[in-house]
Amino acid sequence: MKRTLVLGLDLGGTKIAAGVVSRSGKVLSAVRVPTPARGVKRDLQALFDSAHAALAAARIRWKDIWAVGVGVPGAFDQSTETVWAPNLPGWKKVPLGRLLDRAFRRPVFVEGDRNVQALAEAWLGASTERPARNLVFLTLGTGIGAGIIANGRSISGARGVAGAAGWLAVSEHWHPEFGRLGSLEAVAAGPAIARKAARLARGKKSGALAGIGRAEGALTAGAVVRAARAGDPLARKILDAAGESLGRGVASIVALLNPELVVIGGGLAEAGELLLAPLVRAAKKWGQPLASRQVRIIRSRLGEDIGLLGAARYAMLEIDRRAKSARA
Amino acid sequence: MKRTLVLGLDLGGTKIAAGVVSRSGKVLSAVRVPTPARGVKRDLQALFDSAHAALAAARIRWKDIWAVGVGVPGAFDQSTETVWAPNLPGWKKVPLGRLLDRAFRRPVFVEGDRNVQALAEAWLGASTERPARNLVFLTLGTGIGAGIIANGRSISGARGVAGAAGWLAVSEHWHPEFGRLGSLEAVAAGPAIARKAARLARGKKSGALAGIGRAEGALTAGAVVRAARAGDPLARKILDAAGESLGRGVASIVALLNPELVVIGGGLAEAGELLLAPLVRAAKKWGQPLASRQVRIIRSRLGEDIGLLGAARYAMLEIDRRAKSARA
Repeated sequence: MKRTLVLGLDLGGTKIAAGVVSRSGKVLSAVRVPTPARGVKRDLQALFDSAHAALAAARIRWKDIWAVGVGVPGAFDQSTETVWAPNLPGWKKVPLGRLLDRAFRRPVFVEGDRNVQALAEAWLGASTERPARNLVFLTLGTGIGAGIIANGRSISGARGVAGAAGWLAVSEHWHPEFGRLGSLEAVAAGPAIARKAARLARGKKSGALAGIGRAEGALTAGAVVRAARAGDPLARKILDAAGESLGRGVASIVALLNPELVVIGGGLAEAGELLLAPLVRAAKKWGQPLASRQVRIIRSRLGEDIGLLGAARYAMLEIDRRAKSARA
Repeated sequence: MKRTLVLGLDLGGTKIAAGVVSRSGKVLSAVRVPTPARGVKRDLQALFDSAHAALAAARIRWKDIWAVGVGVPGAFDQSTETVWAPNLPGWKKVPLGRLLDRAFRRPVFVEGDRNVQALAEAWLGASTERPARNLVFLTLGTGIGAGIIANGRSISGARGVAGAAGWLAVSEHWHPEFGRLGSLEAVAAGPAIARKAARLARGKKSGALAGIGRAEGALTAGAVVRAARAGDPLARKILDAAGESLGRGVASIVALLNPELVVIGGGLAEAGELLLAPLVRAAKKWGQPLASRQVRIIRSRLGEDIGLLGAARYAMLEIDRRAKSARA
């Protein structure tokens, strides 16, 4: 056995990605299919099929695959080794690792999707000499979540819920956009940005947002980002406020965990400096001085392979760790 | 060698505690002396003297001591193994472990004070069958800080600053009590409570706080707690508001780390239910639903031995871990 190739699987709410990954982080193949999302059995079949397709695409045989890593959505409970994914029908306490062990006849290692993304960033994302040992990967999109690496290992908490950064309490006000008190998600996630834009555009007769706002449902966070890029002052103001709130959330994370690196990913990161500049400014202004001064805050550049790369990386780290323990 | 006894040292800003601790968590002796706080050399001598006194008090010989654990204030940087304690003169990048190794001729293990307190709570505090593997120990006093245990190990971040919970961004308002924006410490630590009470009592002609307030400097957080206990409505309102803010900070911590247990200690915890009831209520109301529902929030009951117990525990865990690695 070559012991150098790992299969990375990324089970998402809407798509599955599978790829063969080398020990140095090279992606030898990448396959993407929609997630059936019609029960566990069909999702497992799709995972299995995409795995085979990834091997075929890279012209790799199963005997050359050392292990399989899988990133899963929702909460992965490390103590019971079960997946609970509210966005996927039927995924309640599914012992995915055991099911796949049997199917693949290879050691299978499962971890939460945010944590595998964080591991990918720690490994390949920051262009530092050594993998980052303390890193937070923050996904900004419809939801807000964090993958956490501390002392070189991912953290998932008592029930796999750790990293629920959307619930950071950053504001004490009622937020009309979300009908909820000021958690980070209620203030600064995609839906909050879209609803705030819709509310502010309603009274306006001119401006990019007013124009889009007339088409029902068209005022998404993406539309706000595009309007801001085109120079619309209202859209810019909205992104600026969201970035400021996000920065206060990052300040809280940095104070608690003192990471050397915070990587920002997810759909909203597409806004680039319009969101990131106020985010970084607020994070540095509000944070614990030493931790805030030293932390680097950068945008993710790993692209859509991040999930399968991170899943493969998790498998590699776990195999090494268990081999070390077994020799003990 | 018995390999059952460990010496725990707790270096604090105002006092040093030393004690001989058994493998099962029994404190065989406890010695307390004031911290000289007049330079590293004198503090080291006091640590050394109190260690010898603890052994003498327990009638234990050095050859029966397996290892030494030390809890230190400020930031302990695990990568350089140096202590940086701004409250103690001269303590800048002090390689304490190496200095004590030489003095004690025993393996010495150093860790930040908040983390050793958290380890003591995980070990002996929660009266659960097994040590808690995911726990946060929150100290409420003049400052606010957290010790963090995740996956059974303490977390100190890239530079030993992790757990700076006083810097959690919980409010977006300017807080006149602290002359600073709404970090948790500016809103709810001892000085913030005292200053808010002084401000609110200034206009009052009657009430417990008004009476105390007239004596310059007498309006401490402790005085507010005593007035609240005696039934003063203004003092109760102040503690209630502080508890609510603290609960929002705890909600943020629980969402990020999903601990099974949060233990509240420090001087302000003396307020008991007057502070803890609103704290727990807010933490449950604001938090990520699953994580908030499952977490237990309790008051520390380990008393003044918590630091030396935790330091001893840290040494035991590290010895076990290193023995395991060495056999590999």
